[in-house]
Amino acid sequence: MAETGAKRWNFGANEAVELSCSQNVRYFLNLLADNLDGGGGGLAVAEYLSLDLSYEICPNDVHLTAGCHHAIDVLISTLAVPGANILLPRPTYPMYDSRASFSKLEIRRYDLLPENGWEVDLDALEALADDKTVALLLINPCNPCGNVFSRQHLQKIAETASKLGVLVIADEVYRNITFGEKPFVSMAEFAEIVPVMMLGSISKRWAVPGWRFGWMVTLDPHCFMKDSGLVHSLANVLNMSTDPTTFIQGAIPDILGKTKEDFFSSKLEVLRECAETCYEEIKKIPCITCPYKPEGSMFTMVKLDFLLLEDIKDDLEFCCKLAREESLIILPGRAVGLKNWLRITFAVELELLRDGLSRLNNFAQRHSKKQP
Amino acid sequence: MAETGAKRWNFGANEAVELSCSQNVRYFLNLLADNLDGGGGGLAVAEYLSLDLSYEICPNDVHLTAGCHHAIDVLISTLAVPGANILLPRPTYPMYDSRASFSKLEIRRYDLLPENGWEVDLDALEALADDKTVALLLINPCNPCGNVFSRQHLQKIAETASKLGVLVIADEVYRNITFGEKPFVSMAEFAEIVPVMMLGSISKRWAVPGWRFGWMVTLDPHCFMKDSGLVHSLANVLNMSTDPTTFIQGAIPDILGKTKEDFFSSKLEVLRECAETCYEEIKKIPCITCPYKPEGSMFTMVKLDFLLLEDIKDDLEFCCKLAREESLIILPGRAVGLKNWLRITFAVELELLRDGLSRLNNFAQRHSKKQP
Ligand SMILES: Cc1ncc(COP(=O)(O)O)c(C=O)c1O
Ligand SMILES: Cc1ncc(COP(=O)(O)O)c(C=O)c1O
Repeated sequence: MAETGAKRWNFGANEAVELSCSQNVRYFLNLLADNLDGGGGGLAVAEYLSLDLSYEICPNDVHLTAGCHHAIDVLISTLAVPGANILLPRPTYPMYDSRASFSKLEIRRYDLLPENGWEVDLDALEALADDKTVALLLINPCNPCGNVFSRQHLQKIAETASKLGVLVIADEVYRNITFGEKPFVSMAEFAEIVPVMMLGSISKRWAVPGWRFGWMVTLDPHCFMKDSGLVHSLANVLNMSTDPTTFIQGAIPDILGKTKEDFFSSKLEVLRECAETCYEEIKKIPCITCPYKPEGSMFTMVKLDFLLLEDIKDDLEFCCKLAREESLIILPGRAVGLKNWLRITFAVELELLRDGLSRLNNFAQRHSKKQP
Repeated sequence: MAETGAKRWNFGANEAVELSCSQNVRYFLNLLADNLDGGGGGLAVAEYLSLDLSYEICPNDVHLTAGCHHAIDVLISTLAVPGANILLPRPTYPMYDSRASFSKLEIRRYDLLPENGWEVDLDALEALADDKTVALLLINPCNPCGNVFSRQHLQKIAETASKLGVLVIADEVYRNITFGEKPFVSMAEFAEIVPVMMLGSISKRWAVPGWRFGWMVTLDPHCFMKDSGLVHSLANVLNMSTDPTTFIQGAIPDILGKTKEDFFSSKLEVLRECAETCYEEIKKIPCITCPYKPEGSMFTMVKLDFLLLEDIKDDLEFCCKLAREESLIILPGRAVGLKNWLRITFAVELELLRDGLSRLNNFAQRHSKKQP
């Protein structure tokens, strides 16, 4: 636990890590020689992430990972000290939940409110936390909701987290994947208020999820994470873990620095059209409502109305029957923590998307209650 | 814990995994549709590993990982159920120790005996195990000792493990990297006797550690690992984890199937020469002895004699001073569990190796006690 002046933070070193790291070859190599780690990947990532930020990220604060999944794995297992808990959103990206359960890190769920454009239920958040709460996760642009958080709301979240003494895990893997009114603002802008652990990867924006390259950045201007020992523990868990493929590391300066603007803008144009189509087509389906038009990421959450459905009792049955009858796979809401909703991915070719949505419509019509 | 007829095995499902897996997107996708997993990588690995085996490995038993490190991470964290312990060798490859400590899996150490060509101390092994012992690790060809285990000795280890009710983790990452008299025999040959978890990768034989591609194979003809739930838990941890880079997966059939024999034989020739040179040059250094001429892997263990050394009190001080005075980095034995030994890597160009060994000799002479 970090104590710095008056301010008290709940996170800290992981003792199991500190115990195990001295059984590590790299630990000894570091004793023998400083600066064995090379690689320009960290520098390129720092430069890239600083582009639309009001300050410069230091390359030493960038940790390279085999995709954002790997960052989640390392981060959650490091945070999971005995008795600790973490605040995860509902609905969520469930990898955090799986990893937390596996590491026996207690999960407390705060709601994203569909009626408020999926903003965080801040009051409930405060009520959930205690002095064992180490972190709060925010995914922005949001998977699964498809919203983008405003600067004002991000600031409120940062202030709340600071008050609670927890760090913010800012999963920004969909960074820059926005196509509505709201611009993307990074949680990194609020690192003066609260320590931020920013996660990202090249999987989404460059559409190369199979390349397994990502990062975890510690934004910690007041050294709260450093002084508490958390940064040291993280580095040690990373040392025990795999690295991203080396020749992809080598290509990173070019990938991040030289991809033509066209590449991004045409992809975004397609996504905008898909999001629009998805939203409009869903409106035509009687038993399904989409509370918020997606403006970022690749997903939207839609709600099932069982009053209008005949022979289907929940989201799982809906999705199983849909898969069987229409060969269409949609994720049941419960997979992301929201029972009786669906998570729809619209990041597919427009033709395919139209076809899928029309199958969904057919299916819904077929299973709707007959009007009396 | 698996109970099959009279035989009792100590390993089993990991409940924390079974809890967390239902929070996993892939879990739901698998509910909706079978066989979503594609990829020919598993087939190519199964075929490759079956080549010098007396039976065929089934592709379904092959799990692809981001290198052998990743396999260790997944396997050790899955085996780490509360109260369990694992038998690790001394000296060891310390990644197992780090991972086990981190996952709070108790480590019990059995000795490899230098006076017996680094064979396993089987009697001590039996005394160490109890009904909470889930697995025994054997690294063959051995890092750090450089020996290769004989068929007879492997069979004895398998029989002992079977008697103890533990599975054998066969780290065969240096498979085929042998250049002495003894041929490599895979622990897979003894899967009829004891369940074997075989680990490997392309890092060593193809000299591409940065490509991060490996495997974990469950050799389980009597379904002990399957029936106990362990295979299911493993699959679920893999589901929560990263995958190897996709385009390397795609190249695997060619890499494993079409690499020319020359490539391997010339590499082995170099290693044989390096091992020979290393062994002969070490003989000339007064305070260092190498108890066993390396015949596999890329390493050898040598012992320091402090009666002959003047101003150095242990292996760590030896290595620190060596690094400072001669710009030569050698791993202190304690990093692999054997204090006051050194682990020497001879897998470098012959010229460099000669240079390094002569620096080592200079250093040792300089710090030797002056004869009265
Ligand atoms: C919110 C979120 N975080 C992390 C990831 C993992 O990304 P990567 O492909 O870089 O591992 C995903 C991928 O779907 C995601 O949606
Ligand atoms: C015994 C042993 N196991 C596993 C590994 C890890 O291999 P990979 O590079 O495939 O992760 C190594 C690498 O040094 C090793 O020596």
